[in-house]
Amino acid sequence: MRRILIGLGLALLALPAAAEDIVLRGMGSFHVGGRIAEVKDKEVRMIQRQPGGPMTKLDPNGQYIVEQMYVQFFLPKNKKGRYPLLMWHGGGLTGVTYESTPDGRDGWLNYFVRKGWDVYNSDAVERGRAGFASPDVWTDAPIFLTYQDPYERFRIGEGEGSWNSDPSKRKPLPGSAFPVDAYENYMKQAVPRWLSTDKAIVAAYLALIDKICPCVMLLHSQGGAFGFQVAEQRPDKIKGIVAVESATAGNIANAGKLKDVPVLQIFGDYVDQHPRWSTFKKVDMAYGEAIKKAGGSADWINLPDIGIKGNSHMMMQDKNSDQIAEVIQKWLVSKGLSD
Amino acid sequence: MRRILIGLGLALLALPAAAEDIVLRGMGSFHVGGRIAEVKDKEVRMIQRQPGGPMTKLDPNGQYIVEQMYVQFFLPKNKKGRYPLLMWHGGGLTGVTYESTPDGRDGWLNYFVRKGWDVYNSDAVERGRAGFASPDVWTDAPIFLTYQDPYERFRIGEGEGSWNSDPSKRKPLPGSAFPVDAYENYMKQAVPRWLSTDKAIVAAYLALIDKICPCVMLLHSQGGAFGFQVAEQRPDKIKGIVAVESATAGNIANAGKLKDVPVLQIFGDYVDQHPRWSTFKKVDMAYGEAIKKAGGSADWINLPDIGIKGNSHMMMQDKNSDQIAEVIQKWLVSKGLSD
Repeated sequence: MRRILIGLGLALLALPAAAEDIVLRGMGSFHVGGRIAEVKDKEVRMIQRQPGGPMTKLDPNGQYIVEQMYVQFFLPKNKKGRYPLLMWHGGGLTGVTYESTPDGRDGWLNYFVRKGWDVYNSDAVERGRAGFASPDVWTDAPIFLTYQDPYERFRIGEGEGSWNSDPSKRKPLPGSAFPVDAYENYMKQAVPRWLSTDKAIVAAYLALIDKICPCVMLLHSQGGAFGFQVAEQRPDKIKGIVAVESATAGNIANAGKLKDVPVLQIFGDYVDQHPRWSTFKKVDMAYGEAIKKAGGSADWINLPDIGIKGNSHMMMQDKNSDQIAEVIQKWLVSKGLSD
Repeated sequence: MRRILIGLGLALLALPAAAEDIVLRGMGSFHVGGRIAEVKDKEVRMIQRQPGGPMTKLDPNGQYIVEQMYVQFFLPKNKKGRYPLLMWHGGGLTGVTYESTPDGRDGWLNYFVRKGWDVYNSDAVERGRAGFASPDVWTDAPIFLTYQDPYERFRIGEGEGSWNSDPSKRKPLPGSAFPVDAYENYMKQAVPRWLSTDKAIVAAYLALIDKICPCVMLLHSQGGAFGFQVAEQRPDKIKGIVAVESATAGNIANAGKLKDVPVLQIFGDYVDQHPRWSTFKKVDMAYGEAIKKAGGSADWINLPDIGIKGNSHMMMQDKNSDQIAEVIQKWLVSKGLSD
């Protein structure tokens, strides 16, 4: 009788964790990395703090906290991943990449949390909630993406000339899996970027690794370039790498340092016809080959080759994003990184 | 027998939702508001996209998506709040204000989600994951907080002169509830702000109200000024307002528009000795009085008067933050806004 009751109890216990719910033992955020910058000998200027208000002094001299990064974490009750899963976004973007898709579906963050991964989703230095430093500290100006740029460049439209400010006149790639009607929402996720901050970005990512890892990395685009660079410096801390259209890979001379780190590289559709992405693909494949040559494990998935078609560079937001997440999850399980 | 089993089942069902766990029926994010800005007739300039790389053309002309805001939401399974709870941050900050405290405890976001509120925590236009527009669109430069500024200004230290770059030589207010050892972490949350964007910020907040509400607002500091302005324009959509050290309140001539909206205003400790905060307090009290004069409901809590002492301007991050959250939650329940 007691056994029956316990059995029934356990069956009922499982109910609240049905597919739709997300049961967390914790969630939160922190900043990591960064340094104190000293600004000296700059002119005190007069500014208007409120529209119509008086001119008041602004003294820019002093100490500033700069070059930290932001990390938000979600810790599922039903933990199955053997290590934390770090999600790193691409250029001109933030951790929002992995949250809800532009058309409002659950993104990869929710998917992997539901699969039992402790997920740490971050905004790199200078992006989003990481904040950014003043021109007295970073002397170059940030660059801004035009509305049309990713449409033409991220394999949503048919390359240059496919954009039109009238949505009905745009030319998406035939069979595109990107939610093209929600392109505007996607562009609202874009943030400016600086071209001088690579070292600061890597330094903060290293601080994150030193705080959280051993871990598994999920990297996208420019996040791949940073991720491989960082992994080459902390190979013992990295237990697996999933690189989604990495742009570019790490330093091929260092690829052997990842010989004990299982690596999966994924590319979407329409790559070979696109000069930019076909170049990145070659560089990434060569890096994977160099890992294998050193005795390591590097798997390569061209999504169209396994029947998953129409994927843009933003595949975690494409309409079949769950299907790709499943491919990644299966690979992670196959490498013993999750139950 | 069946009844006993069901009873036991229900008792067990309740277990996974024990105090520590957060059980969500959904979570995600979106951007709202914004507009297309056209940049014309600007000079094409040459930039170096990678350190050491070639100089390449950057054409700033074209369309940009600007002035959207970012919202992240958490929907508890055990919903008890009658309306969504919108959390709005203060100046130079983001929604991180309400996440983990600088010393790593759960913040008000987790507290109110656990209490059964659908929470929508946002980054205003120009802050954090909302992104910001180029100097071709916003022609003024942002301002940056020095490391010491909030220490002296937010009633953590004993006003001007209380800061020292050597932590052991700083002068916190006697009995300060702020986690002073984690001040550096707090400053990593700070982001730049512009002084010309108030209208854009209000426009995006109005778009959020029109998307999500009826709702209850939890406002902090500069978020109070925006919140009351917005509430005056959508009084039918706002079912309650909690304003934490609002800086400042709304337009006193419009206070009567909130006569059907219960309002709670809260101030922390050391206020009357501080010129800046004592001024805001007077303005806020006058606004509350004007609401009452119009037949509305405005409650005022000076935390020290109810025995809660040592609170800084960042009371949601102070060591007794849960105690203050409880005061707010009780008020919300007393107004019939939550079970």
